[in-house]
Amino acid sequence: MLIVMKPDATAQEIAGVVQVIESMGYEALPMPGRQRTTVGLIGNDGRVDASRVEALAGVTEVIHVSKPYKQVSREWKPEPTRIPLPDGTVIGGREVIVMAGPCSVESEEQILTAARQVKASGATVLRAGAFKPRSSPYAFQGLGTVGLELLAAARAETGLLIVTEAMDPHGLALVSEVADIVQIGARNMQNYSLLKECGRQPKPVLLKRGLSATISEMLLSAEYILASGNPNVILCERGIRSFDTATRNVFDLSAIAVTHGLSHLPIIADPSHGTGHRDMVPAMARAAVAAGADGLIIEVHPHPEQALSDGAQSLFPEQFDRMMREVSAIAEVIGRSLLVPVGSTT
Amino acid sequence: MLIVMKPDATAQEIAGVVQVIESMGYEALPMPGRQRTTVGLIGNDGRVDASRVEALAGVTEVIHVSKPYKQVSREWKPEPTRIPLPDGTVIGGREVIVMAGPCSVESEEQILTAARQVKASGATVLRAGAFKPRSSPYAFQGLGTVGLELLAAARAETGLLIVTEAMDPHGLALVSEVADIVQIGARNMQNYSLLKECGRQPKPVLLKRGLSATISEMLLSAEYILASGNPNVILCERGIRSFDTATRNVFDLSAIAVTHGLSHLPIIADPSHGTGHRDMVPAMARAAVAAGADGLIIEVHPHPEQALSDGAQSLFPEQFDRMMREVSAIAEVIGRSLLVPVGSTT
Amino acid sequence: MLIVMKPDATAQEIAGVVQVIESMGYEALPMPGRQRTTVGLIGNDGRVDASRVEALAGVTEVIHVSKPYKQVSREWKPEPTRIPLPDGTVIGGREVIVMAGPCSVESEEQILTAARQVKASGATVLRAGAFKPRSSPYAFQGLGTVGLELLAAARAETGLLIVTEAMDPHGLALVSEVADIVQIGARNMQNYSLLKECGRQPKPVLLKRGLSATISEMLLSAEYILASGNPNVILCERGIRSFDTATRNVFDLSAIAVTHGLSHLPIIADPSHGTGHRDMVPAMARAAVAAGADGLIIEVHPHPEQALSDGAQSLFPEQFDRMMREVSAIAEVIGRSLLVPVGSTT
Amino acid sequence: MLIVMKPDATAQEIAGVVQVIESMGYEALPMPGRQRTTVGLIGNDGRVDASRVEALAGVTEVIHVSKPYKQVSREWKPEPTRIPLPDGTVIGGREVIVMAGPCSVESEEQILTAARQVKASGATVLRAGAFKPRSSPYAFQGLGTVGLELLAAARAETGLLIVTEAMDPHGLALVSEVADIVQIGARNMQNYSLLKECGRQPKPVLLKRGLSATISEMLLSAEYILASGNPNVILCERGIRSFDTATRNVFDLSAIAVTHGLSHLPIIADPSHGTGHRDMVPAMARAAVAAGADGLIIEVHPHPEQALSDGAQSLFPEQFDRMMREVSAIAEVIGRSLLVPVGSTT
Repeated sequence: MLIVMKPDATAQEIAGVVQVIESMGYEALPMPGRQRTTVGLIGNDGRVDASRVEALAGVTEVIHVSKPYKQVSREWKPEPTRIPLPDGTVIGGREVIVMAGPCSVESEEQILTAARQVKASGATVLRAGAFKPRSSPYAFQGLGTVGLELLAAARAETGLLIVTEAMDPHGLALVSEVADIVQIGARNMQNYSLLKECGRQPKPVLLKRGLSATISEMLLSAEYILASGNPNVILCERGIRSFDTATRNVFDLSAIAVTHGLSHLPIIADPSHGTGHRDMVPAMARAAVAAGADGLIIEVHPHPEQALSDGAQSLFPEQFDRMMREVSAIAEVIGRSLLVPVGSTT
Repeated sequence: MLIVMKPDATAQEIAGVVQVIESMGYEALPMPGRQRTTVGLIGNDGRVDASRVEALAGVTEVIHVSKPYKQVSREWKPEPTRIPLPDGTVIGGREVIVMAGPCSVESEEQILTAARQVKASGATVLRAGAFKPRSSPYAFQGLGTVGLELLAAARAETGLLIVTEAMDPHGLALVSEVADIVQIGARNMQNYSLLKECGRQPKPVLLKRGLSATISEMLLSAEYILASGNPNVILCERGIRSFDTATRNVFDLSAIAVTHGLSHLPIIADPSHGTGHRDMVPAMARAAVAAGADGLIIEVHPHPEQALSDGAQSLFPEQFDRMMREVSAIAEVIGRSLLVPVGSTT
Repeated sequence: MLIVMKPDATAQEIAGVVQVIESMGYEALPMPGRQRTTVGLIGNDGRVDASRVEALAGVTEVIHVSKPYKQVSREWKPEPTRIPLPDGTVIGGREVIVMAGPCSVESEEQILTAARQVKASGATVLRAGAFKPRSSPYAFQGLGTVGLELLAAARAETGLLIVTEAMDPHGLALVSEVADIVQIGARNMQNYSLLKECGRQPKPVLLKRGLSATISEMLLSAEYILASGNPNVILCERGIRSFDTATRNVFDLSAIAVTHGLSHLPIIADPSHGTGHRDMVPAMARAAVAAGADGLIIEVHPHPEQALSDGAQSLFPEQFDRMMREVSAIAEVIGRSLLVPVGSTT
Repeated sequence: MLIVMKPDATAQEIAGVVQVIESMGYEALPMPGRQRTTVGLIGNDGRVDASRVEALAGVTEVIHVSKPYKQVSREWKPEPTRIPLPDGTVIGGREVIVMAGPCSVESEEQILTAARQVKASGATVLRAGAFKPRSSPYAFQGLGTVGLELLAAARAETGLLIVTEAMDPHGLALVSEVADIVQIGARNMQNYSLLKECGRQPKPVLLKRGLSATISEMLLSAEYILASGNPNVILCERGIRSFDTATRNVFDLSAIAVTHGLSHLPIIADPSHGTGHRDMVPAMARAAVAAGADGLIIEVHPHPEQALSDGAQSLFPEQFDRMMREVSAIAEVIGRSLLVPVGSTT
């Protein structure tokens, strides 16, 4: 951390900064420059709270050199985190995992049909919401616990694993009981109470990037989960806010390379929310795998035109099938392959 | 709502859209154009779920003409909402309310000193966090219930009202017990579970705009609270994300005029988070009142350089005092005045 | 175009809107709704100037249904534009073109070495700036006409075509004389005087998307060139501004699919500026081709660590060579191939 | 400037960075830290080109401590720049200047009427475009030289000064001949060729902030003008791009305080473009003056509903008159006053 003093900062003000740094247990290195003095804080392990120094007299700016997170960083743990799943597969290895299914669980027939379809095309995890965060209180809010039971039934029949979202501590307890992977949605990425609870339950967590979260903030949110005891976090790029309304979001594929550089955690991509338009999903799924994503999460619905939510961005099953063949070929080009279920003879 | 068909949409696809609209209980009006047909949905009361039609065959785009919210809108209730407070004052009337205090409750001496200082300068509500949402798990997280007790003590001594943040359902129950106004922070603006709980408790709610929330989304979040039973919502502009890092956020003062045009709810401004720099707070506080804000919420600390959080954006007490005189004069220019406590002889 | 009236608009105000629409030569269709009346403008061919109606009494909003551009749209010309180049190749067909070279022409040895290297790896167009737009007046501004001469010499030796930037009318005349493709940079995307001049000269134009330009605005800028007489415009996604400073820009790959849907013009991708970091360029080049880009423009420098500009985002020649093999394989996966020079026996 | 090395950078790579810094004529100070070494560049006067070091082996990041501009900075010249105008008044002093008029010159009657109206309300500069940058090539492009003549006629009759936009070198020569202040529009803020030409002509320049320009980039563009010989630059905040489409732009009033902190140049505000809606302009004009703006530029049209451009954001003359009384009172509150013409008896 580098503390930049004002051009007219006094010797006493500089000494004040040094003293606070030392009182926090770090070493201080004042560096007089032509225009102003800067004070280096040496020994920062990523946990220094900048607010302790940025308000001191004579300080004009605090510049972060070290990253503000720790356990999620590559420097803390160089080798990639490999997250084991109940079916014997792993997220974060050479293989690219595909999670697919409808936005919401709507009925027994809908979810079972969807599960069979995505399994037939090669997905190994079924996605579908039982608890739905909707921007309008008047929109369909999900089937709740009934939805969880239907997901368990789909798993029992197909062998797919289950990923589904939790929105609050009460729902998390229910979801953690049933799901194989707990999803935390973009709108809750900085719901720190919920993140801490995620750290205290045993299931892997799929943490989606917030709508205007920097990559650094996404990693800090993952740090909350690790710091609370759960090392199994899967990150997810799902599009960020921008000024252009041509797509629902801007799908930030550079985030994959950046995150792999900064962290050992796996990161997957969600081109359905990343674009918001069914016709763009296959191209962006191909691009995500080409960019190095460790997996995909894709909305697929047996009848998108009848979906109760996100129909416009849900693939038809035959689109999904074609997409799977393309992304498989692209994975091969970069020395990876799509994950296939353990025991599968494909 | 206007459903735009693709240029090559078939008569059957158009009929399909008409049928779905009618099955939802609304009237459909197809309008053939030179390049394509559009279908109007007549009778939308703000609660039509666009996802039912946007995935239909032949549809290229859905355009919203009606607003997606209802009870918070000016069309639903033209006169401004006036929210009564326990001390007999009102938010949302001719008078401009000022809430002030430190970012966090840190100690008995700190909060009592701050309370006395802001009261002396004319604030009528004390702000300070007992539960703190911090982007790093290693930063100070607040004193919790002890903080709430200290706030109650400060109120008992000074007569100031209390506004403080709740971060989850458990904390909300505690905060609702003690506070006069419950604050929901920017990071939780779309924490819908928490918003529903806010609707079921009796205290007024201060709802801060999310970091990348549109005004429409902020109003939808307020709609969640109203729809759950609590009509007393105070909105708050506190700065939004932008590409420029010169300030912590971009303080969007136009949001005040826009919100007043769309909604009957009062809206206040938070120039402390809106700028992130102490030296800009007084100018932006003046600007906010000049722009028509119904109130201000300002970070003030007895010793900003010792603050455990947000010290760089906290005013010194004497700065706050000077600021109060300036904003008072500006309120007068536009036919308003600063709110003074009932029974005060100022 | 749909003109939304205020809820309390009078019959006279509605009649006023109808009258203005008819005076502009279009048909007006008033549609009374439950909350307000909307007036449809029928017959819009993409050239209606909204500012004529949005200021009329009683109008609250103008909604665009038709696109604001015309000659660049798919509806005007459904088949893709194929732009012929002097070496007999084409941009906009099945083949993916690669343009590569240093940010700036720095010396004869540098540009000749770079030209030989990128040609050896399969590029068919040499990129390098003679006139450089730099955000600081004190940074290297390019070699000017000497740079153009060096580019011509590199072409004479290697047979590569030349793309280079023009910044003003005077420079455009010089560049148009020498280059095979004229580049208009992101900062000049809305320099309408320059765009009109581009329309009056004969060379194809590579138009880069502005730093905060919507796709619609990029297409409107291309429309300026077509409307001035030049149909040969190549669009280029090169990253847009966002709130995250982890990368220089956010590389918006969805723009490729969106643009292909709206326009018949070819669009290429610039992952060098799109990311700003050498280590991310190959992954994003692969992703761009997987997403359907019609070409790539890549910064490569014989000695990036000695580059006078953009060294940090310039590939080493051997990195570029490896990247070319990867993107070639990805092009094959989606039924395309890298463009090879006419007469090449590769 | 601080060069951050990778954690695994070798001693040789660190020595390489030191050598390049010294070869540029600056002093290098390597600082070994716990996780990595950083190298300080001492003596930076704001003109170091970071691209020389950021591509060196072992470098992970370059952090700017000094500002990249020089002559425009407060550190170069602490006292505010006061720009003298031909009528004896000054921009940048205690008084707040108001420029007003229609978006475009449309006819003799329109511009003369507008001039009389804004003068009657207290404006001292007439604004109106003769050359108009329009996003569509089919929209009204301005009257050109005829427009300039009409502006000169309006000045002759009313005594108002003239500010009008130049879009290219040819137009600049014409505008510089006639206008008292030359305006460079937001879309040309980084048209460096045009900025250099502005530096070589004698009239003061009104430089509008680009749609997604950081404050630092705006100051660098001003630096281009100063470095080319013209010290009289007036900056202008006019709204920036954001994700919310509720207003045309986000009017960034914090930019005024930030700019006053960094630079000695005056900065005015344009609430007409900043909001895009007539009804919001007076509130934002009041806010801008409360925030410390050195002036306002306001669109006013005798008949906004007949305007050929920007009608929706143009004030009615009576609105402007009321606004002038309000902003005058607010200026007094902060110890300033509206500028009145020299010799005026008001």
